[in-house]
Amino acid sequence: MKAFVTGGAGFIGSSLADELLERGHSVTVYDNFSTGNAQFLAKAEKQQGFALVKGDLLDLAALRTAMAGHDTVFHLSANADVRMGTAHPSRDIEQNTQGTFHVLEAMRENGIKRIMFSSTGSVYGEAAVIPTPEDAPFPVQTSLYGASKLAGEGLIAAYCEGFGFQSWIFRFVSILGERYTHGHVFDFYKQLKENPSQLRVLGNGKQRKSYLYIGDCVQAILHAVEHAADRVNIFNLGTAEYCEVLDSVRWICDELKCSPEITLTGGDRGWIGDNPFIFLETAKIRGTGWAPKLTIEQAVRRTVQFLKENEWVFAAR
Amino acid sequence: MKAFVTGGAGFIGSSLADELLERGHSVTVYDNFSTGNAQFLAKAEKQQGFALVKGDLLDLAALRTAMAGHDTVFHLSANADVRMGTAHPSRDIEQNTQGTFHVLEAMRENGIKRIMFSSTGSVYGEAAVIPTPEDAPFPVQTSLYGASKLAGEGLIAAYCEGFGFQSWIFRFVSILGERYTHGHVFDFYKQLKENPSQLRVLGNGKQRKSYLYIGDCVQAILHAVEHAADRVNIFNLGTAEYCEVLDSVRWICDELKCSPEITLTGGDRGWIGDNPFIFLETAKIRGTGWAPKLTIEQAVRRTVQFLKENEWVFAAR
Repeated sequence: MKAFVTGGAGFIGSSLADELLERGHSVTVYDNFSTGNAQFLAKAEKQQGFALVKGDLLDLAALRTAMAGHDTVFHLSANADVRMGTAHPSRDIEQNTQGTFHVLEAMRENGIKRIMFSSTGSVYGEAAVIPTPEDAPFPVQTSLYGASKLAGEGLIAAYCEGFGFQSWIFRFVSILGERYTHGHVFDFYKQLKENPSQLRVLGNGKQRKSYLYIGDCVQAILHAVEHAADRVNIFNLGTAEYCEVLDSVRWICDELKCSPEITLTGGDRGWIGDNPFIFLETAKIRGTGWAPKLTIEQAVRRTVQFLKENEWVFAAR
Repeated sequence: MKAFVTGGAGFIGSSLADELLERGHSVTVYDNFSTGNAQFLAKAEKQQGFALVKGDLLDLAALRTAMAGHDTVFHLSANADVRMGTAHPSRDIEQNTQGTFHVLEAMRENGIKRIMFSSTGSVYGEAAVIPTPEDAPFPVQTSLYGASKLAGEGLIAAYCEGFGFQSWIFRFVSILGERYTHGHVFDFYKQLKENPSQLRVLGNGKQRKSYLYIGDCVQAILHAVEHAADRVNIFNLGTAEYCEVLDSVRWICDELKCSPEITLTGGDRGWIGDNPFIFLETAKIRGTGWAPKLTIEQAVRRTVQFLKENEWVFAAR
């Protein structure tokens, strides 16, 4: 496979690039380094068949040129800051919707027809059915992030119908593990590093959330691409469990050996557009033979261990 | 109501503008006249409280200025050429997705919080459930038009959650009636005008389609805005029936008093992304007290009558 990985210097993209190289595929990473990190590519850069192109999805000409000669696009580049959508509304639509459109146009112009896309469980909004299956009732969006990813999904599916593309669309829960650099574990770790005796938690701490370990995520993606052959293949990715925010706090504090006083800001959600209960039905991806190896608790603990060993990521952000 | 109508010089927009003025509201039409027609505003221009601004949705600064002082936005401007999406892929995303984003941003900057949006039954793709209700299983998109409208819906819903907007989103079947200027009746009429003895029909003619009369459409929109008070109000609009393409051909030929030889291009759909069966469940909008006055057959016949009396629209396109 001649893989082209957008956002390949990011958390998930660089992990996927490493695994593709490990399996003997060639990989070109395309990243604007707005949130990606060159250090995440240190391992990849030593492998045969690896190339790096610094570029932005909004630069269609550069994207088109860089993409030439590849056969499969793993489109992971995105503005992933779901929480801050309302602070800069144009960022999601530019990076996620317009960016995805450019990826599709560059593929079309290069005659490339296979695309894997990192969507999100946020496209279900506040799901009417939990655990939420891929064919849940038509959702109402509650975040610009979810809306921009849903728009990306729609464009990809339309290109499959209109131009004979084939796609694998993954609706992720939050991903944890090595190279993780944003999200609640990151925020809690940072607070506790500054003051181990105090922790401020958004909402009432009872929000029920789902997580998946990065290694399991990468394996699931490559497994699905190999085992699912529809024109449009949509899979939820997650474990068959969820946890409460305060469970996660307990595991994090245990790893850090601290017992902070916890301040809850209150309310059933942490911020506007926060979803108090995320739990995806993952029977479809498990039906292809994939299963996660780590539980949510193990994933949270591994993430804390990674942050302990890599505190430079706090400065790098 | 101080109404701001994007696409207000178009088929549906100008009909809505007329009705709003009739009811005593003030109306500003914002249109780039790419497909809109100044003659459709001849009646409106004689009314008190009417204003026209020639402008494009892609010009955010102009849109923002024009929108100041209004309280409700009727966002009807769109690239509505569902059939030709693959010939110019950027048109749908620019006009429908980016355009909708600009409308939302201009509203936010002006403190306007009420938006009515013309979406489409095409967002259901090839629906798994027919008649298709608003909460049908999460659809897979089959056209750039549908995908771009779905993206617009998602952005609107996210603005409702994030910025306290209120929205009325209408998933239309195809609309027929006075000022109708594109679609199958238009195409068939044009063919028969040139040669009344021959008619070429895309597909096998058995495609089952749904239509709604423009007068019923406008009444439904205003009825829903008055009677539905959720944050995000989504309604299918259509009649409780469908017809086959060849039914419509029969009514058109009857109105035109011709008996052409019919050539079917074959296949169960007319073009890539064509949907062989569109039939929306409209129990929700009927539950608010609205009901259509015309049947599909009556709507088709009225459309032919309008075209007979207004053949200038063929030259104007």
